[in-house]
Amino acid sequence: MAITRRRLLARAAQWGGTAAAYSTMTALGLLAVPAAYAGPPSLPVAIGRGRKVVVLGAGIAGLVTAYELERAGFDVVVLEARARVGGRTWSIRDGDRIELAGEADQTARLSSGLYFNAGPARIPSHHQGLLGYARDLKVPLEVEVNSSRSALVQTTRANGGRPIQQRQAVNDVRGGLSELLAKATQRGALDQELTAEDKERLLTFLKSYGDLTPDSRYEGSDRSGYIQPPGAADQVGTRRPPLPLRDLLGEETVPPAILFEEIVLMQATMFQPAGGMDRIPAALARALKSPPRLNAVVEQIRSAPDGVRVRYRDRLGGQRQEVAADYAVVTIPLPVLAGIDSDFPAPVKAAISGAVYDAANKVAFEAPRFWEREQIYGGISYTGGETSLIWYPSGGYHQARGLLVATYNAGKTAADFQKRGLADQVALARASVERLHPGHGRDLAQPLVVNWSKVPFNLGPWLHWDQDGNNPAAYALLNQPAGRVYFSGAHLSQLPSWQEGGVLAAHRTVAELAHRVAADTTPASASKTTHG
Amino acid sequence: MAITRRRLLARAAQWGGTAAAYSTMTALGLLAVPAAYAGPPSLPVAIGRGRKVVVLGAGIAGLVTAYELERAGFDVVVLEARARVGGRTWSIRDGDRIELAGEADQTARLSSGLYFNAGPARIPSHHQGLLGYARDLKVPLEVEVNSSRSALVQTTRANGGRPIQQRQAVNDVRGGLSELLAKATQRGALDQELTAEDKERLLTFLKSYGDLTPDSRYEGSDRSGYIQPPGAADQVGTRRPPLPLRDLLGEETVPPAILFEEIVLMQATMFQPAGGMDRIPAALARALKSPPRLNAVVEQIRSAPDGVRVRYRDRLGGQRQEVAADYAVVTIPLPVLAGIDSDFPAPVKAAISGAVYDAANKVAFEAPRFWEREQIYGGISYTGGETSLIWYPSGGYHQARGLLVATYNAGKTAADFQKRGLADQVALARASVERLHPGHGRDLAQPLVVNWSKVPFNLGPWLHWDQDGNNPAAYALLNQPAGRVYFSGAHLSQLPSWQEGGVLAAHRTVAELAHRVAADTTPASASKTTHG
Repeated sequence: MAITRRRLLARAAQWGGTAAAYSTMTALGLLAVPAAYAGPPSLPVAIGRGRKVVVLGAGIAGLVTAYELERAGFDVVVLEARARVGGRTWSIRDGDRIELAGEADQTARLSSGLYFNAGPARIPSHHQGLLGYARDLKVPLEVEVNSSRSALVQTTRANGGRPIQQRQAVNDVRGGLSELLAKATQRGALDQELTAEDKERLLTFLKSYGDLTPDSRYEGSDRSGYIQPPGAADQVGTRRPPLPLRDLLGEETVPPAILFEEIVLMQATMFQPAGGMDRIPAALARALKSPPRLNAVVEQIRSAPDGVRVRYRDRLGGQRQEVAADYAVVTIPLPVLAGIDSDFPAPVKAAISGAVYDAANKVAFEAPRFWEREQIYGGISYTGGETSLIWYPSGGYHQARGLLVATYNAGKTAADFQKRGLADQVALARASVERLHPGHGRDLAQPLVVNWSKVPFNLGPWLHWDQDGNNPAAYALLNQPAGRVYFSGAHLSQLPSWQEGGVLAAHRTVAELAHRVAADTTPASASKTTHG
Repeated sequence: MAITRRRLLARAAQWGGTAAAYSTMTALGLLAVPAAYAGPPSLPVAIGRGRKVVVLGAGIAGLVTAYELERAGFDVVVLEARARVGGRTWSIRDGDRIELAGEADQTARLSSGLYFNAGPARIPSHHQGLLGYARDLKVPLEVEVNSSRSALVQTTRANGGRPIQQRQAVNDVRGGLSELLAKATQRGALDQELTAEDKERLLTFLKSYGDLTPDSRYEGSDRSGYIQPPGAADQVGTRRPPLPLRDLLGEETVPPAILFEEIVLMQATMFQPAGGMDRIPAALARALKSPPRLNAVVEQIRSAPDGVRVRYRDRLGGQRQEVAADYAVVTIPLPVLAGIDSDFPAPVKAAISGAVYDAANKVAFEAPRFWEREQIYGGISYTGGETSLIWYPSGGYHQARGLLVATYNAGKTAADFQKRGLADQVALARASVERLHPGHGRDLAQPLVVNWSKVPFNLGPWLHWDQDGNNPAAYALLNQPAGRVYFSGAHLSQLPSWQEGGVLAAHRTVAELAHRVAADTTPASASKTTHG
């Protein structure tokens, strides 16, 4: 996961395609398009009066688009195919049904208060777009423990193949590296780089950095944990003997486990809304003047010089309806959009249908909180293999039962994993828990599997524009409007697997629409009479 | 702080004095005294029936002692000098008064819901004694964010003297060290230690560990944060340029800031009880059959072969009363105990009066949550200097106001700091906030100062038996009973500055008392008739 996301976020090629458009807009001088995020777009009051926008999709991007357009005076209709808002932001509770294409339906049977964030489950401190809505709409937040030194790393040979605590992986590696660097420094290997004073300072620093002995050897550290913790009277703590650096670096699981918390998107402090990630989209939907139309499956999108018509089918009633508007904002995931009848220009259609999405899966169980008896409170254990990790709940501590995510994979691993039957996926997830927490595989109840590639109205979790055969030019193209149709969503941002991507894409779309409206000389009331 | 605590917890000399006693007890076979903590002592049902114990002090150690003794059937009287239980576990709320010897009284004026944990404010995951009571007594916990990558480090020269985010301090240091180690490895400086395969693996690892370029140079990392975060469309993130390793290691504040989270007592996951640390002692007190007698100031302790008499003064009524019991457990802090009339043996008296306590201070303010607008949610910023740090609240996120701890120091710095007048201490704390968060010094309202050396019934925060001229032999002596008087408390554990020390000391004392009672041939009812 870590590596995949990092690659995604690594300085990707400058797309360039929309840079010119930005310049033009900025030159208009009416609205500043900030280079970096600086809050939701600040639009002139009522700039949207008399203009109608149809927003397709009530995920984060669609909801934020609708919310900000309404604030700017636009008349907004949101069409959402599902019976709920939130899109990938999906918290599954008791009684909820999971439909996966080609699989039997699953119905969640969860104890009161438990929920499964099947999609996004954490928010970094710097995702101020999303956190801003949580703040403004008063959604209570709690800390998501993304990294805990008490969580485990599964090994194959190190420590005799027994799991180790992350405090040991982190600090034995640090100690081992510090010892090596101290040795090399003392041997003069870095005399080109370091003055005598630098060397002195570095050697002093390494002793504390690596918890080295006075002669700069690493012989273990209480940072890596105790065999016997310090207690009363003469119960002096006994620290764990150190694991050899060679053994640690030889484990597939250790480097990702150590580095995960340093990924800028994974660094503490991280949050989750108390009670489920869907509390944010729910709050956004409640804040809309015009509630999203649920169960509205878009079937056709037609453009004209003066407006857009969208035909949809009501999943409950079955009847077809049409919405006419001045503009459309389409946040529908590209694999779903590819299947909708449209009159988009051919290059746009090609960009949409050519998009190759990643795969991602989660398998969750309800269980008594056995992990807390092992002093694990939140955080992630790294199991390696197909199931990748075990993610413990960051909330409800010390309650009887909790929701354990026993598999979360993405990329090639996930593409293979989701080919297995659901029962097989559950069995693998259970086995990985049993391996790390012997005796507790049997405690896992109420398995729930989400294979995002099979989720209707998503057909994939996200895409990487610089991987998987995707075409960055398609990204640039879709980041421009096709006539009166704007495409938006996390997939059209630098953060396609984060809710913040949806927020920022929506903000950009809203700012662009406002610009256009400000420049538009068509009578503002035209849409009402023309499209009724 | 970090270094002081580490030194304290470093493998101290084996005290030895009580080891023999343990062997004897274990040989009795009745009760296992575990080498490491394994839950509260499991005592035979009703082993204490007909035995009376007076417990002096209702801090964590006194309350746990009373709770466990009552569960084992003892008759327990707890005497507490203050009008509240908890001892150092003190949460100050609106209307509470802070009395400090030699200073004007302070009355807290805090907004609803705000509290100031003037004493302990965090619980590590591995403090299972204390956490066990939180679990059993259903005290809700929330995560205490002890380390946040968004919190700041004050610099003097690095980064032009401007504060840096911890993500940058941590990752630029890591990158710089990784580059040096890669260079030295490539130059063959470690060929004695590393095989060719080791070298290859190490070099590969260092590239990800330090986020190095393909030719193993460190040129900055998005782990260190962005100047411009990634956004929509072509808004590719721009990472911060790296700070030179030389500059970082030259800062007094940087090494402690980087290493703090690795101290085993400071590692995530850490907790705080929701609503204030005093929720745990409050729950323990509520669970007692016989509530603690508050405002009971112990004036005299007298021992006899068959029992103990304790005289106390009621602070409210002023009258003197006496409690007779079979045994006493004295958890009173040693500087306070030194001032109480007792007939302890001369070496015990000398051990008590010779104890030299540390100093520790906190200065707190109420303020609008300006730090959250800087993406700081909990965690600690390192200011250096006398005030040491700024500790942000780990709860109530996005609410209007919060309680900011703007100074927390200990050791020599604290001993000097507390010599200043309260107004001066407040001014220094405010200035350190202004320096790190320009413009916000004026936002700080309702200053509260606690100098633990001046707190009545404490006269100090804790002591270090291996520092400050203390005598480890005194520790060993006080960990043995003086006749029927047992001394207990965090100061008689390996964790004198942690609540867990109080819990574990109490567990040991309870186990020893139960052993003794099991071996005692005196009729169980004697105490009642003899001491009334």
